[in-house]
Order: sequence, then C-alpha cells, then structure tokens
Amino acid sequence: MNTVNARVSVQELKRFTIEAFVRVGVSAQDSETAAEVLVTTDAWGVFTHGTKLLRGSLRRLKAGGLKPDGNPRITSQGPAWATVDGDSSTGMVTSVFAMKTALAKARQCGIAYVGVHNSCHYGAAGYYAWLAAREGFIGLSMANDIPSVAAPGSRSAITGSNPISYAVPAGQYPPILLDMSVATVAGGKVYAARTRGETIPDTWLLGADGRPTTDPSGYPQIGALQPAAAHKGYGIALLIETLAGALSGAAITWQVGNWMWDDGTRPTGHGAAFIAIDVQSMMPCQKFTDRIEALIQEIHSAPRADGVSRLYVPGEMEWERHARAIQEGIVLPSDVVASLQESADISGACMPKLTS
Amino acid sequence: MNTVNARVSVQELKRFTIEAFVRVGVSAQDSETAAEVLVTTDAWGVFTHGTKLLRGSLRRLKAGGLKPDGNPRITSQGPAWATVDGDSSTGMVTSVFAMKTALAKARQCGIAYVGVHNSCHYGAAGYYAWLAAREGFIGLSMANDIPSVAAPGSRSAITGSNPISYAVPAGQYPPILLDMSVATVAGGKVYAARTRGETIPDTWLLGADGRPTTDPSGYPQIGALQPAAAHKGYGIALLIETLAGALSGAAITWQVGNWMWDDGTRPTGHGAAFIAIDVQSMMPCQKFTDRIEALIQEIHSAPRADGVSRLYVPGEMEWERHARAIQEGIVLPSDVVASLQESADISGACMPKLTS
Repeated sequence: MNTVNARVSVQELKRFTIEAFVRVGVSAQDSETAAEVLVTTDAWGVFTHGTKLLRGSLRRLKAGGLKPDGNPRITSQGPAWATVDGDSSTGMVTSVFAMKTALAKARQCGIAYVGVHNSCHYGAAGYYAWLAAREGFIGLSMANDIPSVAAPGSRSAITGSNPISYAVPAGQYPPILLDMSVATVAGGKVYAARTRGETIPDTWLLGADGRPTTDPSGYPQIGALQPAAAHKGYGIALLIETLAGALSGAAITWQVGNWMWDDGTRPTGHGAAFIAIDVQSMMPCQKFTDRIEALIQEIHSAPRADGVSRLYVPGEMEWERHARAIQEGIVLPSDVVASLQESADISGACMPKLTS
Repeated sequence: MNTVNARVSVQELKRFTIEAFVRVGVSAQDSETAAEVLVTTDAWGVFTHGTKLLRGSLRRLKAGGLKPDGNPRITSQGPAWATVDGDSSTGMVTSVFAMKTALAKARQCGIAYVGVHNSCHYGAAGYYAWLAAREGFIGLSMANDIPSVAAPGSRSAITGSNPISYAVPAGQYPPILLDMSVATVAGGKVYAARTRGETIPDTWLLGADGRPTTDPSGYPQIGALQPAAAHKGYGIALLIETLAGALSGAAITWQVGNWMWDDGTRPTGHGAAFIAIDVQSMMPCQKFTDRIEALIQEIHSAPRADGVSRLYVPGEMEWERHARAIQEGIVLPSDVVASLQESADISGACMPKLTS
C-alpha cells in the first residue's frame, strides 16, 4: 500500500496553507483565517472539505474570480440582522466575518441573522456553527450551491447539496455539532462506488430516466443525487435556498457558478446564512449546559442495538479525531496529499513536511 | 362502503370545535384561536393533527392537566427573544401567543426567537409557521415530545418525533410550507400496516433487538421509529430538543408527558420554539417574493421523471386541498368522525352537521 509520508502536524499543515494563500496575494490575517477553517476541518477528519479545497481557491485567487484583497462588508443592517457582501473574498474569510457579525448582534439582541451574497464555496458549514458554540452561542450555518440534488419526481437536479450545520455548547463535553447536506449521500460516495465498479443502494442516485438506480457508472455526467428522506431533504434544501440565497441577495440554484469547473475569472455568486443565539441572554449558561449535559448522558447510557458498542452525539467522532490530530498529527488520504502538491505548484509554497 | 355523511363545511366544523372548547370552560377568544388551528389543519388534509386532537384536549381540560383559563405569558425577554410560560393552556393557544410575540419582536429587530415551556401537544407545526408567512415573515416552528424515535445504533427511542415546520411568503403563490417530523414515517403509518397485516420497508421501524425490521406486528408496544435519513434526522431532532426544550426551560425527552395516555390531571411539560424573520426589514417584499416566485416557477417547469405529471413545492398539495375545502367542505375520514362523536359526548357540544 502506498501510504508513505502522509502524516502532517496541525501546525505544519497550517503553516503551508497560510503560506500558499499569502503567496497568491491574500493578506496575512485573511490567510490565517482561511487556513484555520480548512485545517480544523481536516483535523475533524472531514477531508473532502479541508485543505483539499485550497487548490481550487488558489486557482480562482490567481484568475481573479476570487479577489485576494476582497473586503467583506455589511451593506445593510438592523438590530438583529445584517446583509454582507463578500466582495469575492474566499468563502472562508467572508463567512468568518459574517458569523462574527451575527455573534456581536446576538449579544445585544439575543438572536441574529446574517445573510451573505457574493461569496464562494465556504468549506465545512460546521466550522462557522462551531465559532458560535465556542463563545457560548448556539450557531447555525448554511449555504447554497449549484444544483446537484433532485426533488421528489424530478428527472434532474433542482437544488444544491446545500449544507446546513448547527452547534450547541455542551459544558464538559465538546459542542454538539451536526454538519449535513440535503442529499442522501455526497456525490463523492457515488463516484467512489463507480470507481470501484460497485452497485449502490437505490436511495442515493437517480438515473437518466429520473428513477432510482443502483448503477453509478454514468455519474456525474448522468444522474442526480436523491434528497435525504425524499420530501424532507428537498424541503430543507428550499429553506436553505430561501435564507442563504433569496433573502441574502445571492445567486440562486442555476445562477450559482460551479466553483471548481466554471470560468475562474468570474465570481460564483454563492450565498450563505448564519444565525447565532446567545444562550446567556436567555438562561444562565450553567443551567443550559447542565441540561445539555444531561441529554448527552442520557444518550450515552441508552440501550444499544445488538452489536453496537457506543451511541454518538453529533460531532463526537469529529471531536475525538480532532483531539488525536492535535496530539499525533493528521494522517492525510492520498487524494489530499496530491491536491496539496498541486497547491504547492500553483502558489510556490513549500510542501508541508510529511512523516510516516 | 361506509362513508355516509362525512362531509362537513369549514364553518360548521369550526362552530362545533369552538362550542366544545367553550363548554369545558375555555374563553370564547381562546376557543376561537384553538379551533382555527385545528380546522385549518383538517382543511389542509392533515387529519392526524386536526380536530381529531380535540378529544384529547377536552379530556385534559376537564381533568385539569390543561387549564381552561390558562394564561400564557412572557416570563423573560430581550429585544429579539422571549421565554413564554404556557400556564398549561392548550398548545394551540400558547403557540399562537408565542408566534405573535415573535412577530412583534422581529418587526423591531429583523428576527426573533420565542421559546415556550409548560405547553402541550400543539397540533400541526405548520400552522404557526404559516401565521408568520401570511404576515410577510419567514416563520419556523418546532416542538419536542416524549421519545418515539431511535438514534443510529440505539435499541429504543431517544428523541421525540419532534415536528419542525417553516413557511415562506411566495407572492402570487401560497406560502411554501414544509411540516415534517424527524422520523422516516409517522407511527400511525406503521400501525396502519400492522392493522392491514402488511410488511413495511426496513427504514421505518426497529425491532426489539434494535435492528431494522419489516414486521410491524408488535408496534407500538415493541419497536422504535427510525430517524429520517439516519444521523440526519437524529441530528435535527437534537437541534429541536435544544431550541424547543433545553433553551425554553421545558421538559426534555422522557420528562415530557404522553399527552394522550398519561395522567390527565397533570401537565405534560411540552416545549416549543418559534422563529420569525421579517423579510421587509432586509429587502423590499416585492423583490423577495419575485425571487421566490422565480424559484417556484423553475421547479414547476423542471424536467420530470418518467410517469410523473407534476413537481410540487412543499405545501402546494395542502393549499390545493385547503382551497377545495373552503369551496366544497372537508371530507372527514371515519376515524375523525368517530373522534368528533367522542368530543361531542365529552363536551356536550352538538355534533357538526355532516352531509354526504
């Protein structure tokens, strides 16, 4: 097996990511912000949304579709809301700015909504929800994207995979953290089955006729992902389209650019939405976290199905991987290593030191 | 077929429901409020959550677990939030009060959250979301309940079926309106299969061993409902438990009483949460509804799978049934008619006039 030299320390991966952003013209501070998002995501073990995305961002930053010196700003606001123009900064820089804006307003009002337009792929939705939770807020984060997911009865894609995440402060436990798309499974999972020549469950994909199929061999040229739990995933997708797209002034459905494959000189127009709820406005923090801790303990001690050794709270696996990553480094999959090499080539940054 | 005399006009069903509430001591105004919730739900064709619930409410109102003269009130508040003590009023009266509170605060601040404790089963989550949408707000409504739904890997129920709903004003179209539980299907659907002696898909129910089963014959004594899309439905259930339960000060999971079967002299302690977003604070209403209308038109004109004649927006089927109900009356299923007869017996109200 070809797994040589795939372990990297969190610090070294962050050093590389910052350097790559800086070398294409992003400020030191924005590079640090974006790197923190991507490397935290890798530390959670969510490699599809971590530094693997660096390559695509660097390409767009060089081509002009993303602006290295973009300056996200509030274009309109009220006591508990704001609309943010991302100014074609990276989705990470814009989204951190937007969630921090939501936190400041929620601290005054109890809850706040911030809608974002002129953003791009923002990485893992969960990072921004967690930004809220680590300050004692309940956080929600969601974004739209170019359509890839069907509606019940449709032949082709209707909505984006539209990620949504929430995080809840949990006292002695790491925050509860759910980060999901509205599709049954990610397109990458369908593509991996195609690569391995396997069939897939009939709840993942629609074929060319718009009917469920177990054959992934034509994907992604043929077929749309199925929405999770049919009308439920579809319905949630439209809520996200409403809050992250329609209300924020962003592009909607097919107006959104494909951030990887479309013309890199043009903005993608992605939208996003962030909601923060200030727990301590409403209830003593300790009382709230006592209640959440009791809920977690109830789940941990609940009867398990035959053969199941543990019941998990959302995010628990990711936080355990995160703790291990801090201690032992991150073991990167080979596709991420290859992608980092491309990022090094594009930016001229020095590849991170990998160990076995 | 025994379908005689099952059609009722909306006005007559509402007259009956108001009279039944009034006869057990509820004020005329609160009776009108609660009846409007239940009858609107029947008009949508959601008969599991309409006037069929009247019977259970009347029993509790007579036994004392619900207070006919309950007085929902704000116990603490800030610019964009409030906590409401339902004072053991019906869930309908408390929830209308809570959403109206959220609307007033969102009008000032842009968005508002209202958490509710000391409530009861609140009927259809969608009614309260719609209250917001008909005033031009985006509305969300959610509630917790006694556990009936498993977590991935659990042997038994962990969370309630925890309904969540949202509604979005849509200009020339009726509001987009999703109302869903976090289970794959409602328990009533499993029970109906049991009654008919049929097997069920293996994504609906867990058996006694905590493994998926196609055999509903032991339900509801044996088995827990499966969460919709596994960890996704489970994760959303915990978000609802957080916003409607933990943050509102309500009962959580097993602390919640079973509103139908538990001691009718005691409150059930249900929690709920309502969020309102004032569109016109953030964007001209016309611009927003233009964007939503375009999204709906895009869905309506999208390619359909073989054999599919229409693509629906969430709530569209319910609004078409609603329009028909206003014109032609509501054709009540036999279980609802039987339940109304019980409500008439309990309250002494005069049965609604049914026609064929």
